[in-house]
Amino acid sequence: MAGIKPTIALDAMGGDQAPEIVIRGAAIAHERFPDVRFLAFGSGEILTKLVAKNKALSEAIELREAPTVISADAKPSQALRNGKESSMWRALEAVKEGEAQAAVSAGNTGALMAISKFLLRTPAGVDRPAMASILPTARGESVMLDLGANLECDANNLFQFAILGALFARASLAVEIPTVGLLNVGAEELKGSDEIKAAAAMLRELEGHLPLKFQGFIEGDDIIGGKVDVVVTDGFSGNVALKTAEGTARLLGHFMRRTFRSSPMAGIGYLFARSALRRLRDHLDPRKYNGAVFLGLNGIAIKGHGSSDAFGFANAVGVAVDMAKYGFLENVRAEFERLQTSELRSRSAPL
Amino acid sequence: MAGIKPTIALDAMGGDQAPEIVIRGAAIAHERFPDVRFLAFGSGEILTKLVAKNKALSEAIELREAPTVISADAKPSQALRNGKESSMWRALEAVKEGEAQAAVSAGNTGALMAISKFLLRTPAGVDRPAMASILPTARGESVMLDLGANLECDANNLFQFAILGALFARASLAVEIPTVGLLNVGAEELKGSDEIKAAAAMLRELEGHLPLKFQGFIEGDDIIGGKVDVVVTDGFSGNVALKTAEGTARLLGHFMRRTFRSSPMAGIGYLFARSALRRLRDHLDPRKYNGAVFLGLNGIAIKGHGSSDAFGFANAVGVAVDMAKYGFLENVRAEFERLQTSELRSRSAPL
Repeated sequence: MAGIKPTIALDAMGGDQAPEIVIRGAAIAHERFPDVRFLAFGSGEILTKLVAKNKALSEAIELREAPTVISADAKPSQALRNGKESSMWRALEAVKEGEAQAAVSAGNTGALMAISKFLLRTPAGVDRPAMASILPTARGESVMLDLGANLECDANNLFQFAILGALFARASLAVEIPTVGLLNVGAEELKGSDEIKAAAAMLRELEGHLPLKFQGFIEGDDIIGGKVDVVVTDGFSGNVALKTAEGTARLLGHFMRRTFRSSPMAGIGYLFARSALRRLRDHLDPRKYNGAVFLGLNGIAIKGHGSSDAFGFANAVGVAVDMAKYGFLENVRAEFERLQTSELRSRSAPL
Repeated sequence: MAGIKPTIALDAMGGDQAPEIVIRGAAIAHERFPDVRFLAFGSGEILTKLVAKNKALSEAIELREAPTVISADAKPSQALRNGKESSMWRALEAVKEGEAQAAVSAGNTGALMAISKFLLRTPAGVDRPAMASILPTARGESVMLDLGANLECDANNLFQFAILGALFARASLAVEIPTVGLLNVGAEELKGSDEIKAAAAMLRELEGHLPLKFQGFIEGDDIIGGKVDVVVTDGFSGNVALKTAEGTARLLGHFMRRTFRSSPMAGIGYLFARSALRRLRDHLDPRKYNGAVFLGLNGIAIKGHGSSDAFGFANAVGVAVDMAKYGFLENVRAEFERLQTSELRSRSAPL
């Protein structure tokens, strides 16, 4: 897949500061990936001007008309009904038509999920798509899914998420056989709901046929501890865990800043430690982890944070480029086709 | 209730470093609460010696024989079947018999939950007990429940947990009418499972009759943000959120220490900021938040961390003392009796 030159479709109007941030983000991504082409969907003079201002980018980007924008507070059902001329819809349509390998939007999450599902559908063997993200951990980076697309999941869903997450980790973290853990309230085999236990049994039984190494159950502190490359859970718990980790990190950052301002001595201490503290801040920079990915569709759809800056948006584009270059979709199709074969089917009834 | 002199039953043999830590913890608690009496259940020469060593404590503590100990890896069913002569069982029995107002154990969590439920039962109106804890937040302290006693919860469970959590916050955080939030994947009314939406509807409808102020849905980052006094969720999500927050805080502490050791300049910075950093560490000291409380039983049962030190164990005792002094059990009975009246019943079908 190394020879591929991906085309990325951009929802130029999605996000709090669109289209400025989107175009500036594309410009940063263009510097990093000069062989990537962009199709930007949107409208208005400002969009044309923004692109014209950036000579290098203007040769790699093509503007496509999309007269409407899906608002941040639109319900998914409204977006599906009325969004067909929107920048988000048209970006995903470009993926469906094969014009682009991936779409990136910082717009309405629920709408992006609904339209992606409607236009791109799931490949054979995948019941439901999941939302995944990359997180910084004690050991480097891990992938977690689902983050909110499916509030309740059965054993088959969790089993499929494990495969999708492993293939995403292979593409984005460059780990050939990622380790996978199922999030639970304890590491013992007896704990957890029937669905989780059934998913664990399926993963244990079929592990040899899967692109992953199953590590059993993990607990909340193992997520950030980096115990596994891929954390699999239902969308409710995944969403809660992700936001809890973000909130805790933000609070501790706030406490640290307050501590360094609490006395003149502490202030002097900060001056001495400043460059080391900046390196730590860079390592944990949330903009580096911008971009939730919808896995399990016939196309790549990536959601950037609505409030992200150009650097964050460029990183979301970077995830799309990695997935396209490493043949994520082709791997998903191949793995689930293999699982559908009668040989494997006969081994595990729940499949 | 201010005149009450509580008696606390101690499982002297529960926890990684029992009985040393338990007796030393009781000694610290005795200094803080000189009017509290202790009944310590256990056996062996070492226990007698430990108590004899501490003159002040020996006048406030009574040793009671309990020949067996429930091991850390015993299943709850085993503990129920074979644990009747154990230090944990006898401590809870003392609460049941009215000899003590609360029991504190750093032993096996599942066994403690099972034996507490069996011996103490739930009061009228409470379907299931929940596990709660106090957490440090951006604004002070909050209460969260359930933390793992009930992996799946229906609307009635969540509704009851809100009342139990509010009364616990009143006793332990000294807030007369605590604010309550239901943990969800978004603050919008449309989000979440049917059970969560039904619980929210019940809380909204009956709010005027409850000892709490309902703030609607909150998200993972609001827990540590301190948006509400009481966070209500099912035991799976609560367990994941608590451990994720702990794991994230631990990782950032580790990163900070590494940062200060990363260069001579950073090391000098640490020396200047040291006393301010120590104040921050004290504020977040996990030993201060040691002690998960089982709410919704006819008696108070508190679980200290198995690995806690004497200071942590003393804090778990402190929570028991607060609950006994502030009449937590009497408040629970009164609130649920009021809810059982036909007037309120007719207002809300699910009750």
